[in-house]
Amino acid sequence: MAHPFDPGYFEEPFTALAGEYPGEDVYPPSQFRVEWGPIFHRGRLDGSARVLVIGQDPAQHETIIRRILVGEAGRRVQGFLGKLGITRSHVFINTYLYSVYGSVRAKTRRDPRLLAYRHRWLDALLLGQNVEGVLALGTAADEAWQFWKATPAGQSLNVAYAAVGHPTYPESFSKGDKTKLAAATKKLLQGWNSGLQVLAPHIVHPDVPTPLVPYGDTWAEGDRVAIPEFDFPAGLPGWMHEQDGWAKRTGSDELGKRRNITINVPKGVVA
Amino acid sequence: MAHPFDPGYFEEPFTALAGEYPGEDVYPPSQFRVEWGPIFHRGRLDGSARVLVIGQDPAQHETIIRRILVGEAGRRVQGFLGKLGITRSHVFINTYLYSVYGSVRAKTRRDPRLLAYRHRWLDALLLGQNVEGVLALGTAADEAWQFWKATPAGQSLNVAYAAVGHPTYPESFSKGDKTKLAAATKKLLQGWNSGLQVLAPHIVHPDVPTPLVPYGDTWAEGDRVAIPEFDFPAGLPGWMHEQDGWAKRTGSDELGKRRNITINVPKGVVA
Repeated sequence: MAHPFDPGYFEEPFTALAGEYPGEDVYPPSQFRVEWGPIFHRGRLDGSARVLVIGQDPAQHETIIRRILVGEAGRRVQGFLGKLGITRSHVFINTYLYSVYGSVRAKTRRDPRLLAYRHRWLDALLLGQNVEGVLALGTAADEAWQFWKATPAGQSLNVAYAAVGHPTYPESFSKGDKTKLAAATKKLLQGWNSGLQVLAPHIVHPDVPTPLVPYGDTWAEGDRVAIPEFDFPAGLPGWMHEQDGWAKRTGSDELGKRRNITINVPKGVVA
Repeated sequence: MAHPFDPGYFEEPFTALAGEYPGEDVYPPSQFRVEWGPIFHRGRLDGSARVLVIGQDPAQHETIIRRILVGEAGRRVQGFLGKLGITRSHVFINTYLYSVYGSVRAKTRRDPRLLAYRHRWLDALLLGQNVEGVLALGTAADEAWQFWKATPAGQSLNVAYAAVGHPTYPESFSKGDKTKLAAATKKLLQGWNSGLQVLAPHIVHPDVPTPLVPYGDTWAEGDRVAIPEFDFPAGLPGWMHEQDGWAKRTGSDELGKRRNITINVPKGVVA
């Protein structure tokens, strides 16, 4: 059985980008989980991407897989892309290279070194490339886009853009309150529908031509789409890309939790 | 600060090898930790390798890093290569794609499908390439070499070859007995000295010309050499390649342990 995979960073400018990333001097350990290393991207780096997604906050699964948006949030975005007919021609980057720990200070967010590095990624993925639409997930990603659009390179590019709510915002906002969750999900999906309206007319080279079907008030069957195996590095076991919840941060105190990632192969995989 | 890395599998035949590997039908889960996925190699796949090392049994650190011989055993072999003047031009492959669980049956070891896949790697790394010496670590690796040498391709190649003991065999053999450990280490290093004598005359294109200094009766300063950062995938934090013991299998029973890898960032990395 063939297991297609993402070859990662083997050509310029991505070799340089994956080898020369900012560290603790730009991303303070008091605000970011720098100790787990940077996590750069997911998807096509070969110029075939038609949609660029700017996400944020790689968590523990992303840390093990070394690709971003590979869990529940990723599946929801994959569903959004599917509605645009994009099943392969996507690329995701992070607003921040590292997972946020606590909150990010304004001074850090605007650090010229942080911006300059991120702008190199945006330049590489957008200038002279084939991207027909850009999607930002959450306010930090939207701000990242605005910073880039203010650069001469950003000003030179005319591309469809939509900023929408982060895919798992309803869960983090509602904290277990079902009424709040339903309301927040409805609001999120209204925003995602607006995003679809903005982007759909511009995605003229979809992988699979698809009539636009908007979201309802809650997640419907088919709104969550599996992340393709070919977005993962070589050799990872199936459960790492088919399932969720196999990596947790456990520890007896905050520092213990911060230092830990505990992986358990899901039940049923090993007899 | 630049962080050179190994780009991995992006060219044929390695793209095909990393995408079409044998699974449970060839590597039974009763004998191998198939559930963690295959782990293919470490080092140069660009034809620059001068020494090929055949190792075995990737453990938990290798599973997270997705490269082989990255812990204590790897540092000892790196020291061996250093004595031959090899600091970069090495490539390692596994006897088995997966970590051994328990022991391997003769029928499995000789499965034609297992052999055929491994032979594709050996063909790719040896035929028409620049390897000047082959090192096998342990009996299973030696057997793997003999199987390949019996093929028409193997017979066609004339290359220096040494089979030596596995680098951490003294520890696993002596089980905490210091007298046994000292004796087993002495014996291991005698074998490694024989291996150096066999290979050294043939390594005529070392990275750093180095006068051959044999091992003593025990590990001396400089015999263990750090695994170069450029052997690791992009973006991994420094402690993953500088340190050991950050990944453990924990669980309340055998199955629990088998399903688990627990990672803790070493003390001192996070304040």
